[in-house]
Amino acid sequence: MIGKLIKKIEETKAPIVVGLDPALANIPVSLLAKHISEKGETFEAAADAVWEFNKAIIDAVYDLIPAVKPQIAMYEALGLPGLAVFKKTVDYCHEKGLIVIGDAKRGDIGSTSEAYANAHIGKVKIGNTELAPFDEDFVTVNPYLGSDGVKPFINVCNACDRGIFVLVKTSNPSSGEFQDKVTDGKPLYELVGKMVDSWGLESLDGSYSNVGAVVGATYPEMGKALREIMPKAYILVPGYGAQGGTAKELAPFFNSDGLGAIVNSSRGIIAAWKKEEYKRYGEAAFADASRAAVIAMKDDINAALGE
Amino acid sequence: MIGKLIKKIEETKAPIVVGLDPALANIPVSLLAKHISEKGETFEAAADAVWEFNKAIIDAVYDLIPAVKPQIAMYEALGLPGLAVFKKTVDYCHEKGLIVIGDAKRGDIGSTSEAYANAHIGKVKIGNTELAPFDEDFVTVNPYLGSDGVKPFINVCNACDRGIFVLVKTSNPSSGEFQDKVTDGKPLYELVGKMVDSWGLESLDGSYSNVGAVVGATYPEMGKALREIMPKAYILVPGYGAQGGTAKELAPFFNSDGLGAIVNSSRGIIAAWKKEEYKRYGEAAFADASRAAVIAMKDDINAALGE
Repeated sequence: MIGKLIKKIEETKAPIVVGLDPALANIPVSLLAKHISEKGETFEAAADAVWEFNKAIIDAVYDLIPAVKPQIAMYEALGLPGLAVFKKTVDYCHEKGLIVIGDAKRGDIGSTSEAYANAHIGKVKIGNTELAPFDEDFVTVNPYLGSDGVKPFINVCNACDRGIFVLVKTSNPSSGEFQDKVTDGKPLYELVGKMVDSWGLESLDGSYSNVGAVVGATYPEMGKALREIMPKAYILVPGYGAQGGTAKELAPFFNSDGLGAIVNSSRGIIAAWKKEEYKRYGEAAFADASRAAVIAMKDDINAALGE
Repeated sequence: MIGKLIKKIEETKAPIVVGLDPALANIPVSLLAKHISEKGETFEAAADAVWEFNKAIIDAVYDLIPAVKPQIAMYEALGLPGLAVFKKTVDYCHEKGLIVIGDAKRGDIGSTSEAYANAHIGKVKIGNTELAPFDEDFVTVNPYLGSDGVKPFINVCNACDRGIFVLVKTSNPSSGEFQDKVTDGKPLYELVGKMVDSWGLESLDGSYSNVGAVVGATYPEMGKALREIMPKAYILVPGYGAQGGTAKELAPFFNSDGLGAIVNSSRGIIAAWKKEEYKRYGEAAFADASRAAVIAMKDDINAALGE
């Protein structure tokens, strides 16, 4: 699966992923109000608004980008109607040729991780029929439970040609509380990075592995060290834009082949309509603002990488 | 919320929780076949079978126990129909007076953790209406992202009188790969335990805190150390039974007041019908086998604690 992602990145010349994190605050008020007037103050109304919002953004940007990253928490917060829209979004992105990275940060003990892996990137057998529950291409995985929590995901990567991104060093301010703790002379995130490198050897797909890593743009020095520790891992880089990471800090996340990293922006793209620089589009043309923001992000990152 | 759980534990004299982890392999073949004959080899059929299975077990054991712990991965693996049955199970357990611990092991950066907290133990505002998406009483939380990933859950605990159990030392064989790593002279799980203790001060409810911890029965020595580090944290103890933890190893998880821990068994209860000692019940009376297994577990643990 990582080979497919790389191909799409090369075709679009865009090592970027758009985070579809439709917190209600990111959705134009008039759009939500329209659906509330139809279905009342219900999860169904909110989910319909999210769907209309997502579809417009996908339609506006799908030709520019290789992949999207829906954040399942935002859909889970709208109950069952929200999760139905998560699934609808995954399927629609596939129709548009996009690769879908489900940002779910799942992880549990072995048999339970297997259920999560099947839920997100695998299949479940009912009688003699195999069905894909949510059918993402990649899913993010939390490594705190160790190898026997991660390996069921790798087994599914190999069985179904899918991929995972394992949390190594997250973009948030307090990620260092545990991840930076020094053990055997090295910070914990480097130990996790070494494990990602070793897990990755079990699922190679060309020059890279289906086992990637999440490393926040907000920690470029650590990104540099991790880039060396995990040469075959694709790095999913959150934290660009709204969280404070800048394009010129992204270079260390890439390998000398120009590959090896894909940079996420969520609010920076989907809530571009709220930003001063895109206000000219107006609330109704929120998707056009997203398209302009994707083009700007692409230019910003490619310029910084070209330097 | 922890006060309510303690009250229920005292009323039932049962510091135990039944894990509702209905992997399809735990469901009698004839029950699944019946639903497949009605709805085909579909998620709907599997979800209907899970619901019939859960309801029968809940009806058979609800008067004996304070709480249940549905493992959401098993429901997520059946797609949207599975998650609908998760919600139906939560609601039905509430009708029967049971406290519901959602085993979801969620955790993310701040704003996303807030969405997960609202999804599972909180409320979401749509227009002027507040709605509870999944409405569990407690949810399990993964701490790998640090304080800003955990605090949104604590805020919701305080706003909605709910609770969390934070993963500290998990029951699986490779939990030590990261959790046992020594940093500043102490294993990481002790550092996480100290944080649980400190987070817990922000949500006290009587002698205990709404911020509890998960510590596996399979590591009793570590349980003893953690018991001292987190005096106000209730410990949710998985790993008894099927995973190898025994009753006499459970004493260190409890405080001298006889409180402070609640022991989970999942397969040992819900799949009791498959065990040699309960085979006499037969596949059709699987729920009676579960009741017998709950009574045996209660006796086993209370005897060990009384010693």
